[in-house]
Amino acid sequence: MFSFDTQLRVRYADTDQMQVVYHAKLIEYFEVGRTDAIRSLGITYKEVEAAGIIMPIVRVECNYLRPARYDELLTIRTTLNELPTGHRIEFDQEIYNEENKLLCKAKILLYFLDKATNTKQEIPEILSGRLIPFFN
Amino acid sequence: MFSFDTQLRVRYADTDQMQVVYHAKLIEYFEVGRTDAIRSLGITYKEVEAAGIIMPIVRVECNYLRPARYDELLTIRTTLNELPTGHRIEFDQEIYNEENKLLCKAKILLYFLDKATNTKQEIPEILSGRLIPFFN
Amino acid sequence: MFSFDTQLRVRYADTDQMQVVYHAKLIEYFEVGRTDAIRSLGITYKEVEAAGIIMPIVRVECNYLRPARYDELLTIRTTLNELPTGHRIEFDQEIYNEENKLLCKAKILLYFLDKATNTKQEIPEILSGRLIPFFN
Amino acid sequence: MFSFDTQLRVRYADTDQMQVVYHAKLIEYFEVGRTDAIRSLGITYKEVEAAGIIMPIVRVECNYLRPARYDELLTIRTTLNELPTGHRIEFDQEIYNEENKLLCKAKILLYFLDKATNTKQEIPEILSGRLIPFFN
Repeated sequence: MFSFDTQLRVRYADTDQMQVVYHAKLIEYFEVGRTDAIRSLGITYKEVEAAGIIMPIVRVECNYLRPARYDELLTIRTTLNELPTGHRIEFDQEIYNEENKLLCKAKILLYFLDKATNTKQEIPEILSGRLIPFFN
Repeated sequence: MFSFDTQLRVRYADTDQMQVVYHAKLIEYFEVGRTDAIRSLGITYKEVEAAGIIMPIVRVECNYLRPARYDELLTIRTTLNELPTGHRIEFDQEIYNEENKLLCKAKILLYFLDKATNTKQEIPEILSGRLIPFFN
Repeated sequence: MFSFDTQLRVRYADTDQMQVVYHAKLIEYFEVGRTDAIRSLGITYKEVEAAGIIMPIVRVECNYLRPARYDELLTIRTTLNELPTGHRIEFDQEIYNEENKLLCKAKILLYFLDKATNTKQEIPEILSGRLIPFFN
Repeated sequence: MFSFDTQLRVRYADTDQMQVVYHAKLIEYFEVGRTDAIRSLGITYKEVEAAGIIMPIVRVECNYLRPARYDELLTIRTTLNELPTGHRIEFDQEIYNEENKLLCKAKILLYFLDKATNTKQEIPEILSGRLIPFFN
């Protein structure tokens, strides 16, 4: 298993008139979590993209339990329960508030695509090589 | 069944450097679809909120099939397959591009909450009264 | 003088917890106004970009007079007081609410750049040709 | 003079298809800078708001010099050149990239308003008391 926690602070722009973080914004926070999780492995998503691979989102499933609020320091937990193989990578992600209450919980599925041809391709070795040690 | 189509044009701000609409933005487009669908019934979500009821998102499930692109005039289809009862309302939503290709498909679950107490409550009659004729 | 009005409805996502539209969002609305103004001339910004020209924002000056609110149908007025020449184009833009009250007022300066070389270039003829009739 | 630097990393969502950060997003980054600058004084904007004072944006003036790009760690410099008095507070703000190149430069004017009555009011003492030591 590979898991990584990152933190971000809720911006004023992210709130809506219900006095909470707008629901679609939390989907964006998950991307921050995935990006930082990949960075923690010693590579960056930017480098993956520069290597000719893009990772579009294929499926999002998100359950909202409690609202996130302005100025809270949130923790985003990004987990890979299985070593990705083939062209798919599925993240389990959770967001916690400062009292460690679970705010939302998601499964996010992405594909690896060749940037030039837009066709599915295997997880690049620059990424899988970094992940393998976590699954032994 | 109740179904309503609305259109919106993709803004430059909604694109990302993958040259497509950022995935979380499409979740926001669905809200435009629901809002216009409710408006077509002769009431507005603004009025529902003014009547002391809020409708937070509880669950989003979205499958992305094809990318949306800058300046495309998208069609957002918002469907209620069942008359909502109790405190839950679930929308089936789809986004189509100008060639009528399906771009994404979602199920969005919302609750009706009392704005003052934040507790679940029945679908308000101002809304259910408008919906009943579609389910006979 | 060339002037064009377009309308857009405030989305829930655009509000913040001050119960008004977040200030940076109005800067984004201005882009919708410029895009629709160009479209009214018979070409699209998308076509300008496809012709190898990008139009980055160089300067924004915006005065906020009154707040915009959820679900309001706003009018965005986009005006060119002078025929653009050289590599600069400056728009005067205003946003009005449903009671025709002025909400904000901006000057937005953009440059024409060659997309490949990122260097300044003259306003393309596909655009200036459409504008000239308004300045005679 | 009071000045504070804060850092933030550009998110994928903030980019547009010109491969740079969308211009209005940088206006939002400035708010992160102001919020962190206030926090560095030992109070938070959240507390100011809880004390019944809101600080709407009245004027934004922003010059864009160079683009910001995905994944860059930006530095936002927030400066008060004068001790605010009365109901106005004007920030000078700048954004620098990792090579310390200036990307954009802004003046942002805000008012202090009483949240309940929406009328102008003096800068609250909880804030001015913290600022005075920087201007002696």
